[in-house]
Amino acid sequence: MKVVKFGGSSLASGEQIEKVFQIVTSDPKRKVIVVSAPGKRYPTDDKVTDLLIRCAERCLLKFDPLKLYEQVIERYASIARELLLPNELMTEIELDLLGRLNGDKGNPEQFIDRMKASGEDNHAKLVAAYFREQGVEAHYINPKDAGLLVSPNAGNAQVLPESYEQLYSLRQQSGILIFPGFFGYSTAGEVYTFSRSGSDVTGSILSSALKVDLYENFTDVDAVYSVNPFIVSHPKEIKELTYREMRELSYAGFTVLHDEALVPAFKAGIPVQIKNTNNPSAEGTRIVSERAHTNGPVIGIASDNGFCSLYVSKYLMNREVGFGRKLLAILENFGLSYEHIPSGIDDISIILRENQFDSVIEKKIKLQIEAELHTDEVIFEHGLALIMVVGEGMRHNIGTTARASKALANADVNIEMINQGSSEVSMMFGVKEVDEKRAVQALYNEFFAPVIV
Amino acid sequence: MKVVKFGGSSLASGEQIEKVFQIVTSDPKRKVIVVSAPGKRYPTDDKVTDLLIRCAERCLLKFDPLKLYEQVIERYASIARELLLPNELMTEIELDLLGRLNGDKGNPEQFIDRMKASGEDNHAKLVAAYFREQGVEAHYINPKDAGLLVSPNAGNAQVLPESYEQLYSLRQQSGILIFPGFFGYSTAGEVYTFSRSGSDVTGSILSSALKVDLYENFTDVDAVYSVNPFIVSHPKEIKELTYREMRELSYAGFTVLHDEALVPAFKAGIPVQIKNTNNPSAEGTRIVSERAHTNGPVIGIASDNGFCSLYVSKYLMNREVGFGRKLLAILENFGLSYEHIPSGIDDISIILRENQFDSVIEKKIKLQIEAELHTDEVIFEHGLALIMVVGEGMRHNIGTTARASKALANADVNIEMINQGSSEVSMMFGVKEVDEKRAVQALYNEFFAPVIV
Repeated sequence: MKVVKFGGSSLASGEQIEKVFQIVTSDPKRKVIVVSAPGKRYPTDDKVTDLLIRCAERCLLKFDPLKLYEQVIERYASIARELLLPNELMTEIELDLLGRLNGDKGNPEQFIDRMKASGEDNHAKLVAAYFREQGVEAHYINPKDAGLLVSPNAGNAQVLPESYEQLYSLRQQSGILIFPGFFGYSTAGEVYTFSRSGSDVTGSILSSALKVDLYENFTDVDAVYSVNPFIVSHPKEIKELTYREMRELSYAGFTVLHDEALVPAFKAGIPVQIKNTNNPSAEGTRIVSERAHTNGPVIGIASDNGFCSLYVSKYLMNREVGFGRKLLAILENFGLSYEHIPSGIDDISIILRENQFDSVIEKKIKLQIEAELHTDEVIFEHGLALIMVVGEGMRHNIGTTARASKALANADVNIEMINQGSSEVSMMFGVKEVDEKRAVQALYNEFFAPVIV
Repeated sequence: MKVVKFGGSSLASGEQIEKVFQIVTSDPKRKVIVVSAPGKRYPTDDKVTDLLIRCAERCLLKFDPLKLYEQVIERYASIARELLLPNELMTEIELDLLGRLNGDKGNPEQFIDRMKASGEDNHAKLVAAYFREQGVEAHYINPKDAGLLVSPNAGNAQVLPESYEQLYSLRQQSGILIFPGFFGYSTAGEVYTFSRSGSDVTGSILSSALKVDLYENFTDVDAVYSVNPFIVSHPKEIKELTYREMRELSYAGFTVLHDEALVPAFKAGIPVQIKNTNNPSAEGTRIVSERAHTNGPVIGIASDNGFCSLYVSKYLMNREVGFGRKLLAILENFGLSYEHIPSGIDDISIILRENQFDSVIEKKIKLQIEAELHTDEVIFEHGLALIMVVGEGMRHNIGTTARASKALANADVNIEMINQGSSEVSMMFGVKEVDEKRAVQALYNEFFAPVIV
């Protein structure tokens, strides 16, 4: 049995839904289909979810939401016309959305969640109707009836443990099950949505709950690439990568899947297959717990910029028990989270994302560190990029570091920082932002370019 | 003007003190001489300080200290005979030591400090007497009269700030000043000693207070070596290194000077010259604030073993503000200090010295981390060695990392950890202890061996 999730662009038009139908019905194991709200048909198009949020916000501000309401309805209506769906469907969707619009607004955040969730909920009804029109047994599944219970946190609901057992009984249901992504119900019966990429979360929860063989995640790329295609043209596709590799890569700019979404599937050890709705014959990328063979030490290279380093030095720092902890506590008090902590004997650097603070906070942090920790030097250095070189088993591949650092040296890139030794599957280099692109290209050429004899 | 400090082995016998006399009088700038207690004359010999500690402890236990007392006196007496010093000197030393032995024992730790300090104090009197016998104007300086004030912490006294101004007036005194190392007086007038290598501390304080041009530290090696001579035979000597380089090297096994001892000289920017009493014509090693030329990227390679790594992984750790701080707080509660913290995205390693805890504490730590931080994995890995590759300006020398890691790869050494990017003057590699020697040799050959064309 498979859970199959389709993203917004895979369901943005009638034509796309026809593709989805072909994909689902071509494999009898594709039993549970998780649908997103209609996404963009072209780059400047609106996502239905965004329209719904704006519509809800206008309501709360007591402005007339009619125009936005009509835009939403027209998105469904145009798909319904394209797919020749019966009129009753559109009536049902209109009544549902009007009911939500006129519902209780005492809890504004919950009201917004209720509006947002309609995007997936109504689209699941539409998709189920289309499947039935094609003569296939298909049922819209109401997450409330199915028992998908969540915590009452608007925009950041967490699945409740009891959901898993309840959802398991979906296995007994006949036909294809069309399940709306993105939301669940609180024990009080109210709608709450997951955080962004919430349909991925739903798919992951269902995969785990139903103990399926595979979670297929259809999106609009053929595969996860080994490097950013904007930096290296026509990069190698990754056939298989582990959860850990994906997580390391997604940290530094790879955004195919929202990594938090994968936790339930990850914990249940269910493989995830990323595939392309628009090119379903492409093999795609499989995300697994463990990989049989490594195909060389490196599977992917990712990079991200916008980092800075906070350098603190103090003679004999090394002898001071608690110094690092106190330093981190100061940053925590400013609400800052850090990324990495390369340390020397009498100095320590803390790598932070720059977008967390401005120059005023920077000055305050500097003063507080100097005052409380009696440091010799406190220096912020901006404009740092981090490059992750990722691959299972890399740690025990003698010489990988030498190859990587030689490639950077040959490309005239100075290594500002190396962080290696905790993760077995990655090696991190800090370089100046101006060197980022050149550094990634050099590393890609070292580990991926075919050797020409 | 120079402050010149001689270590215990440089003053262990009459023959050694004759050498000291030659050294001091050969340079009129050698004004202030800091002396240690008589050290070992041969490997199995006792240091006077150790005899004094045992003697004091026997007193406190109400055992007869006579035998140890006589051993101490005999050490001075044998030197006095060798140097043909007048009898009154030995009478003075005997009376001093008897006075201490019979003194107040209400504060046992302060009593031990008082006994320990006599080693330097009486030896300074002896050395001054010898200088005078040779017809040179030389004065024993009593640290109390000179104003060397310290905090009343037995075995770990800290110099009080007002000492510096008071000690400055020693510049006005005529002749050569023989100053006992290792101790000062509290404002209540009681003796307290510095921590280990306390004579180095006294020399460093005097250098700073008297604003001298140079602090000469005479010991029994020709120079600081670029690598441990037990690992690489006949290694290159270091002519000049910076405080920072010395500190990084001393962290991993270089023990020529106690680094805490250098703080006062370091803060006053006074260069320190390490020289050999037994070979004073050897140039020695100069420790400075800044170095004019770098002589290649690497100045020294040091290594130390007995480290372990505590590996902690948790999916999405990276998103948890405060995770690292909480982890460090747990270790701090167990009284453990950490060395380094290489981190991945969802994992973090903490490098600790193994001698801080046993397997029972290890189990407790593991349980507490699992219980409080809800981690996926907590693993201790033992038998790690750290190798420091040290050199000013190394950070901005493109290719140093590549050379180092290539050398390790060629020697078939797997790099367990790299920590680079905080200190500008060092690069740290973690390797398994079994690989330590081979790794250091490979790095030495890479950076120091002459290239044979």
